[in-house]
Amino acid sequence: MLHQCNMDKSLGKHVILELYGCDAKLIDSETLVHEVLLQAAKIANATVISSTFHQFSPQGVSGMIIIEESHFSIHTWPEHGYAAIDMFTCGDILDNDSAIEYVKEKFKATSIYMADMRRGIIDGDANLVLNELHHKVSYTSK
Amino acid sequence: MLHQCNMDKSLGKHVILELYGCDAKLIDSETLVHEVLLQAAKIANATVISSTFHQFSPQGVSGMIIIEESHFSIHTWPEHGYAAIDMFTCGDILDNDSAIEYVKEKFKATSIYMADMRRGIIDGDANLVLNELHHKVSYTSK
Repeated sequence: MLHQCNMDKSLGKHVILELYGCDAKLIDSETLVHEVLLQAAKIANATVISSTFHQFSPQGVSGMIIIEESHFSIHTWPEHGYAAIDMFTCGDILDNDSAIEYVKEKFKATSIYMADMRRGIIDGDANLVLNELHHKVSYTSK
Repeated sequence: MLHQCNMDKSLGKHVILELYGCDAKLIDSETLVHEVLLQAAKIANATVISSTFHQFSPQGVSGMIIIEESHFSIHTWPEHGYAAIDMFTCGDILDNDSAIEYVKEKFKATSIYMADMRRGIIDGDANLVLNELHHKVSYTSK
């Protein structure tokens, strides 16, 4: 299928999430982290193509999902109750907000710091604009 | 093996790269893009754990590599000569600069826009600091 990237301001939208206060046991389970991230992709209305996850010893999980609209990734540090999640998507149909709420709830995160970046900025004629990487940051807490 | 993350200021370093002016044919080859990204990870002294790549139709490639030190990812838009690359790493031994030079040369990029973010900021006692996401941006051109 076509790499779906029809946003009017950029080719991709990259949401960078810092999840704090997560339940250490939950984010140290490769099985659970894999399930949650796959479900988050589905909740965002993304189409999953493939995924690969890894359990570290003594702790920590890394995982990546290629979706038709780009990717979701996660790295966890259970010893800090911290998870780094990236949602790189394109197309206007994706619902990242619902996916973010879902992972926050599933990992029992107490707060999230978020940066929202535009990747591949394009102008009104769909021509790539060089030398720009727009972003904004926000912070939410339960 | 242990998730290697012994930086003194953050758990992870996230380099966000916008490559412009790439050779469309080169970045539309799943085989070549996969080879280049794997080699870039090796040049950075990363330890590759697993990878998954996908060829889109009519064009474009997405790929992700889990490394012991986190991940490398790429999404290409050959029609724009554009590639979005992320290098999320931890540990002080990685040589991202050499990896960046390598991909720039291999894809014949004419310019790169780069953002360098710290993920999971920690203080001097290795305690996580909430509500921060330090970053700086830079731009290089051949």
